Amino acid sequence: MTFRQDTDLIASIAACAHALADAARPATLAHFRADVDVASKEDGGFDPVTEGDRAAERAMRAVLAKLRPDDGILGEEFGTLDGSTGLTWVLDPIDGTRAYISGAPTWGVLVAVSDADGPILGLIDQPHIGERFFGGPNGAHVSGPGGERSMRTRAARPLSDATLMTTFPEVGTAEEGAAFARVAAQAKLTRYGLDCYAYALLALGQIDLVIEAQLQPYDIGGPMAVVQAAGGIVTDWTGGPAQHGGRVIAAANADIHAEALALLA
Amino acid sequence: MTFRQDTDLIASIAACAHALADAARPATLAHFRADVDVASKEDGGFDPVTEGDRAAERAMRAVLAKLRPDDGILGEEFGTLDGSTGLTWVLDPIDGTRAYISGAPTWGVLVAVSDADGPILGLIDQPHIGERFFGGPNGAHVSGPGGERSMRTRAARPLSDATLMTTFPEVGTAEEGAAFARVAAQAKLTRYGLDCYAYALLALGQIDLVIEAQLQPYDIGGPMAVVQAAGGIVTDWTGGPAQHGGRVIAAANADIHAEALALLA
Repeated sequence: MTFRQDTDLIASIAACAHALADAARPATLAHFRADVDVASKEDGGFDPVTEGDRAAERAMRAVLAKLRPDDGILGEEFGTLDGSTGLTWVLDPIDGTRAYISGAPTWGVLVAVSDADGPILGLIDQPHIGERFFGGPNGAHVSGPGGERSMRTRAARPLSDATLMTTFPEVGTAEEGAAFARVAAQAKLTRYGLDCYAYALLALGQIDLVIEAQLQPYDIGGPMAVVQAAGGIVTDWTGGPAQHGGRVIAAANADIHAEALALLA
Repeated sequence: MTFRQDTDLIASIAACAHALADAARPATLAHFRADVDVASKEDGGFDPVTEGDRAAERAMRAVLAKLRPDDGILGEEFGTLDGSTGLTWVLDPIDGTRAYISGAPTWGVLVAVSDADGPILGLIDQPHIGERFFGGPNGAHVSGPGGERSMRTRAARPLSDATLMTTFPEVGTAEEGAAFARVAAQAKLTRYGLDCYAYALLALGQIDLVIEAQLQPYDIGGPMAVVQAAGGIVTDWTGGPAQHGGRVIAAANADIHAEALALLA
């Protein structure tokens, strides 16, 4: 029996994922729209890491130590902890720190639990709105201001009628930016700046494509679980596995995935 | 006595502005993240106007017909209604229709009441989050998930340490885009895609500058009232009045306003 077929395990890790997101909410909100002390992780670069980031990951690791002490952890702020179960918790305490320090409501807490094949289940949580997008073997659901409902990605439509999102207009290197621009030139609408929230909109069936580059594994674990559970496809730009980060495309369906992949190549 | 000195009038029109935003909430939310019928206002262009847009402006006009029947109205969807009081209600039922049809929580309902000198008071309302940014002669306040509190724009900091926002990377014409790029090149962080919500972040003291072009009067009335009441400065790119739209700069304080204006010229 694989992890994915073990319904007791799935229920247990789903509950744990919610507990992690619950623990991260007060930690992130305590520093949101307050005077944050923006440190820089890299000399010369602008990579804001706030106390909210660190407090949220600490809170999540404390929950894991209690509920799932034998699983591994891959977290943005405090690195890797080896486990013995074959399961790894992939944690990004605040995805979109630039949105967070700007006060925008589009950052998120990302949680996924993965085996060797990638994310089994995961979530995108937006604490300020009080909105959570969850996906796993039992489907994809959103809960928040509009109540709770299931999510399903969009049916196929031509790229010329599609909405595309990414976080920065530059996307990545010049080559990566040019590849993105080839897709954007064919899309009906291209929007920027939503970080992980763009993947939530894809799962909700509101948009068709998210294309990014230079992602870390913890940037894509949670979003990948949510989008796949809603019926979408998440790969790298060659159609290979996406859970390791790098160049990632998330698509509402196989048709638009193929159409965009051909332009990225 | 000017309108601004008439405390009874100010209380009355403030209550009316809240009543308008209250009326617009269910109208906009009924069509948010639902299957929307996207019509195009201009042949060949992509200017999505949804039923939510029209329903919200209809709901607001019905409130005005009851509470302030003699005031004028300038609305995005249903045009101009002349009044006899010297006051005009400036209404944008959904600012950020592209965000709205994409499911993003950064569109807003904009309301301002203006005399010949510009907005007296106004608001930016985000119905999905349940968040309202209000500004007038009695100051600026936000109410929403974090409770209710007053707002104040940021103290002066150099542009090299500042955050700048606009909606589209292109900004407007090639000339307008180049002017924006001169400011962006000097700023620490430039973010895109938030429509009216960027002005709310400016009023909250989270960012330093919003620079846009090709605005309509109803795009800027509400945001201008909120930002000014929080201590900010809103002008056109030459330092003149902004309430007529066009090229607009909103700044947290006089220092950064002057620094950015010099680069836009």
